[in-house]
Amino acid sequence: MKAKVTVTLKNGVLDPQGKAIGHALHTLGFQGVGEVRQGKLIELEVAETDPAKAKAAVEEMCRKLLANTVIENYAIELVG
Amino acid sequence: MKAKVTVTLKNGVLDPQGKAIGHALHTLGFQGVGEVRQGKLIELEVAETDPAKAKAAVEEMCRKLLANTVIENYAIELVG
Repeated sequence: MKAKVTVTLKNGVLDPQGKAIGHALHTLGFQGVGEVRQGKLIELEVAETDPAKAKAAVEEMCRKLLANTVIENYAIELVG
Repeated sequence: MKAKVTVTLKNGVLDPQGKAIGHALHTLGFQGVGEVRQGKLIELEVAETDPAKAKAAVEEMCRKLLANTVIENYAIELVG
């Protein structure tokens, strides 16, 4: 079973990387661009075939390693 | 209008960051984890309100800055 994890900064947390991308887009002439925020996408294969158990396992991975829950949110999407 | 851009490495392109995450998960006791790949997620506000034009603009941003199309794929999702 495949899982897609998206990790994004919580609202209110400064995102200098997103700001840099926004600046670069303005410099390239894309004037209509407002706020830009950058997050992470992690795709992983899990051996577990039961969707509920797979989701629980991936959630534990998020809490323990993939996301810093003090400043980041995570979302899990199971595929296939 | 908001756009979500996901940038992922093409198949066959080595992903050392994903490998490192996989190793760390194994070390933490998650034995059922197979391949791990890491990508980027970029969320941006665009002033354009027409969905087709907004998508075209974001696609140009991807080609010019957000993705390295030699080794990366990108996907665009418009929200609201």
